Amino acid sequence: MKIGVLGTGMVGQAIGGKLAEMGHDVIIGTRDVPNTMARTEPNPNGIPAFSVWQKQNPGVKLGTFADAAKHGEIVINATNGTGSIVALDLAGETNLNDKILVDIAIPLDFSKGMPPILSVCNTDSLGEQIQRAFPKVKVVKTLNTVTASLMVNPRQLADGEHHLFVCGNNAEAKAQIINLLANWFGWKHIIDLGDISNARGTEMYLPIWLRLWGTLGTGIFNVKIVK
Amino acid sequence: MKIGVLGTGMVGQAIGGKLAEMGHDVIIGTRDVPNTMARTEPNPNGIPAFSVWQKQNPGVKLGTFADAAKHGEIVINATNGTGSIVALDLAGETNLNDKILVDIAIPLDFSKGMPPILSVCNTDSLGEQIQRAFPKVKVVKTLNTVTASLMVNPRQLADGEHHLFVCGNNAEAKAQIINLLANWFGWKHIIDLGDISNARGTEMYLPIWLRLWGTLGTGIFNVKIVK
Repeated sequence: MKIGVLGTGMVGQAIGGKLAEMGHDVIIGTRDVPNTMARTEPNPNGIPAFSVWQKQNPGVKLGTFADAAKHGEIVINATNGTGSIVALDLAGETNLNDKILVDIAIPLDFSKGMPPILSVCNTDSLGEQIQRAFPKVKVVKTLNTVTASLMVNPRQLADGEHHLFVCGNNAEAKAQIINLLANWFGWKHIIDLGDISNARGTEMYLPIWLRLWGTLGTGIFNVKIVK
Repeated sequence: MKIGVLGTGMVGQAIGGKLAEMGHDVIIGTRDVPNTMARTEPNPNGIPAFSVWQKQNPGVKLGTFADAAKHGEIVINATNGTGSIVALDLAGETNLNDKILVDIAIPLDFSKGMPPILSVCNTDSLGEQIQRAFPKVKVVKTLNTVTASLMVNPRQLADGEHHLFVCGNNAEAKAQIINLLANWFGWKHIIDLGDISNARGTEMYLPIWLRLWGTLGTGIFNVKIVK
């Protein structure tokens, strides 16, 4: 399958690397290809520079946001949430229209210090902003409630006995993504919360998720819905 | 133990009723006692009027917010979140000072339609607002992530194998409440998230919690943290 991944950070690397490893044809998109390839230092969180990471993952191609969006039968938004709309504008509406956009981005604003705040919440969400800005794109919000390593390997934790959430306005697109998340990564339990306005819920879960990360001392955790 | 419960709604009834049943000396506080006793119709959500409920729970006394706060060695805020500060002002700072205030309130604003929005979030929380307004009160935020029936009987669900959160600035007060929640209601797993600013996290969990309630078709569910 041809997949376009927007964003060269931890989530883009995890998703793009895993899908390429499985034999999919992946282009990861960035704003400025020469600039991305010129960086060799890890980012402040210790995530390897893309150019370094790519040497271990030669199957993954790098292109512009537009290259990746044009390439993908499915496009995955793994950019920083505060920059997602700009990145998607650069990807180009005509390259995205009628496709499924898997939106993993989290609208965390670190500019005001710690803990980060959400750049949008309560009466709106990043998922909804993206759907409004790109009305012909089938936005499916998912994977944004777990750390990158769990996204692509949920069975490393309790044999996958924990939950992921999905929301979006297009039922067929959601069904396809639920299926792909099971086939690609092994997700066992995915709850469909409803339309894209439920992105408010999964994005507003971030503050407790971040705090639990600190309290538990690991990002390898998730919630299991017990009923 | 002498307990003051502020609020005559579903949460006040569940907590006050359970504690009285266990032999504690409970006064539930309301703004206007004659007015509360005059109502006999269930509220729009089907919660029985206090006067009707009290006939089945004759051990629970009704008083003003100030009566309840003065009475309690521990005071429990079970008012509507949007009215909590006003209720606590009526309860009276001198009646609350130096006591533990267990804050269960959720700052949901239904006035703009459905879904409700939070009246405070992201850069602040109701728990923090209360702590700032009553600096000598030991505010412990907890129980606000589950429905009333689960608060007082967590073992009805998966034998209690799910998680509750607690936060607050006073370590001794939190330790005492964690102990009481286990002894009173049978809570097995309580995670201390840290200081009162973590009320942001547990309050911002409400949108996904409300949506899960709709999706699952029951309020008798909770999260288990899997790590």
